[in-house]
Amino acid sequence: MSNTGRNYAASSVGDIQARGRATLHNDLSLTGSEISINELPAGVGLPFLHSHKRNEEVYIVVKGKGRFQIDGDEFEVAEGSVVRVDPPGVRCITADAQSPIRYICIQTEAKSLVQFTEGDGVILETKPTWLPAPAK
Amino acid sequence: MSNTGRNYAASSVGDIQARGRATLHNDLSLTGSEISINELPAGVGLPFLHSHKRNEEVYIVVKGKGRFQIDGDEFEVAEGSVVRVDPPGVRCITADAQSPIRYICIQTEAKSLVQFTEGDGVILETKPTWLPAPAK
Repeated sequence: MSNTGRNYAASSVGDIQARGRATLHNDLSLTGSEISINELPAGVGLPFLHSHKRNEEVYIVVKGKGRFQIDGDEFEVAEGSVVRVDPPGVRCITADAQSPIRYICIQTEAKSLVQFTEGDGVILETKPTWLPAPAK
Repeated sequence: MSNTGRNYAASSVGDIQARGRATLHNDLSLTGSEISINELPAGVGLPFLHSHKRNEEVYIVVKGKGRFQIDGDEFEVAEGSVVRVDPPGVRCITADAQSPIRYICIQTEAKSLVQFTEGDGVILETKPTWLPAPAK
């Protein structure tokens, strides 16, 4: 299921618990990031440590709980935890022994963001269709 | 609650349903993205359309359902929906009349990603502490 327009692409990653991992870069033709949505079953951790050459990573835990290891530091994470890791950080994540963990990982070119939100967004005069028309 | 190391920063956004919106750029000192985690109550939509000057946006619906409007096209979204919007896309999102919607929005400089995953990651020889030590 996907649909596209001149300025957008939309799709669905389906059942992440069943898939284990979905990556968005190719499906959505992303140009500023690679994004993965991941679920590790209870007791399962990634079997390797890794770092990056250029990319900053941000992890967002959206369900469950687990543990991070970064540069030898270990700490617990749970729904709502957010973590930035710089390219040289040596990192890994595991689900808790008793709980699966679902997390989103966002890779971007470090130091690439120029401006954002109020500095980059443009509010338009026209209104979304779900607002009632203004009184005349 | 937050902790930092030479190559990382970790925090928690807490209860998004109560907060409504959390932004990560400043809390985590991000350099490649601005990321917001948002929840709209049932029947509530953003009251304005907006576009961007430079930034690509990716929306990930992590809970509930709602509707998107982009360049006049309207479509339904639900948990698992993922949407890329190019800078000039005129966009808005609303929760469904009967369901709240929780979504993550990622802003990045369009066309900034140079390489990713296998092209950018470096697998290390040392193993995470949660793996059993190899047999000697």
